[in-house]
Amino acid sequence: MNDTLPSPSLLARVRVVMVSTSHPGNIGSAARAMKTMGLSELVLVSPRQADAVEDSQAQALASGATDVLDGARIVSTLADALADVHFALAFTARRRELSHGMKPLREATADAMDFLATSQEETRVALVFGNETFGLSNEEVDRCQMIAMIPANPAYSSLNVSQAIQLAAYEFMMADNAFVPRTEEARRASSVEEVEGFLQHLESAAVQADFLDPQEPKRFMTRMRRLFTRARMEPEEVAILRGVLAALMKRR
Amino acid sequence: MNDTLPSPSLLARVRVVMVSTSHPGNIGSAARAMKTMGLSELVLVSPRQADAVEDSQAQALASGATDVLDGARIVSTLADALADVHFALAFTARRRELSHGMKPLREATADAMDFLATSQEETRVALVFGNETFGLSNEEVDRCQMIAMIPANPAYSSLNVSQAIQLAAYEFMMADNAFVPRTEEARRASSVEEVEGFLQHLESAAVQADFLDPQEPKRFMTRMRRLFTRARMEPEEVAILRGVLAALMKRR
Repeated sequence: MNDTLPSPSLLARVRVVMVSTSHPGNIGSAARAMKTMGLSELVLVSPRQADAVEDSQAQALASGATDVLDGARIVSTLADALADVHFALAFTARRRELSHGMKPLREATADAMDFLATSQEETRVALVFGNETFGLSNEEVDRCQMIAMIPANPAYSSLNVSQAIQLAAYEFMMADNAFVPRTEEARRASSVEEVEGFLQHLESAAVQADFLDPQEPKRFMTRMRRLFTRARMEPEEVAILRGVLAALMKRR
Repeated sequence: MNDTLPSPSLLARVRVVMVSTSHPGNIGSAARAMKTMGLSELVLVSPRQADAVEDSQAQALASGATDVLDGARIVSTLADALADVHFALAFTARRRELSHGMKPLREATADAMDFLATSQEETRVALVFGNETFGLSNEEVDRCQMIAMIPANPAYSSLNVSQAIQLAAYEFMMADNAFVPRTEEARRASSVEEVEGFLQHLESAAVQADFLDPQEPKRFMTRMRRLFTRARMEPEEVAILRGVLAALMKRR
């Protein structure tokens, strides 16, 4: 599907769905935004112009991503677009849906990527974007498993739909770690083994200090693993913390 | 400058500079992208159309952000645009400049926000974007303190300039934590005081265990502060780690 992606990239399983889009230009811009971030599967649900893909403005704005635009599938209903999708994110700026499983984009992306990483290869995630003026209807939102909100200025939160797609695609690319350049100055992350070694060290210190009952560890390691995974520790930081632990344990 | 921002928001000190922009429409789209993310100061360096701000397409694409567009300042040179700027980020997609203090957008944003947070109120950060076709010249890049690269598909990394501005503005908004909604499910972050309390606890444990020489602390606290700030600890995690430290110290 996308030869340029590191294999197996989770991005190949992320679909963008544009519902009832009015302006073909936005579809072209969306195709360009997607391709720059490594997404390639676009589905259009009843665009206002039936020939939106061939539209000259759409083609011009797609720029070097006409392959994504030309490959777009056009369907009649959102149900069709999501027929083989297992996890659909509805994008909305409407505050009234705040209560309904809504998450900020970055958190929603993490959930969706976790879902892909831990499920079978056939599973698909869809990012669903509504009409420029009206967004998604309640019925359309209800077909999705989660609502993603792009944090924005409450005084003016109206993102253009192709800009919203650019941001979503960017967050997915970042979460996939697909194209982040390895510069000299980039932080060198500890390996999973290094972090796990530290966590074991921390656990045994907690047990020896009688802080943790090995018969009833509860969620100690789960919580600590979550914290130190999130922290993306550098090897030197692991070394410092293990040094402190070793010194504290030696002197007891 | 921007009434809707939490005061004092660092975003009010971030300027967007567009150099030699060819298409007024991109300037309008950029104004809209900026406003949605809480940025409001736009400077245009010799746009191809001198009347780019009044251009009908620019006005139309600015949508509800015509105030940002109309407030744009037009200058002749990048030097003029950066005269009162203390930290300028040059945006480029060119790989050849990889060696020259270049960082991925998210890291560059963190550096720029750190700079703003730790410097005087008068300091300004500028995000500098080049011409649609040619980008920034070497001379223009050399006027900036850092190069920011938006990670992108190596097979097609050509972002539209207003899309690049949308992504940069989003990362600054996210780093400023200005508009991220507080949903029920959102993680509750520890306060600066809670994290600092833990860090002091860690420092005294390290000193008592003879791991850290208080006469020659080197960068111990700097590194630990960086790690545990990056980790965005939850209060329960702070409590667990302080519990382990207390148990280890008590039993010595």
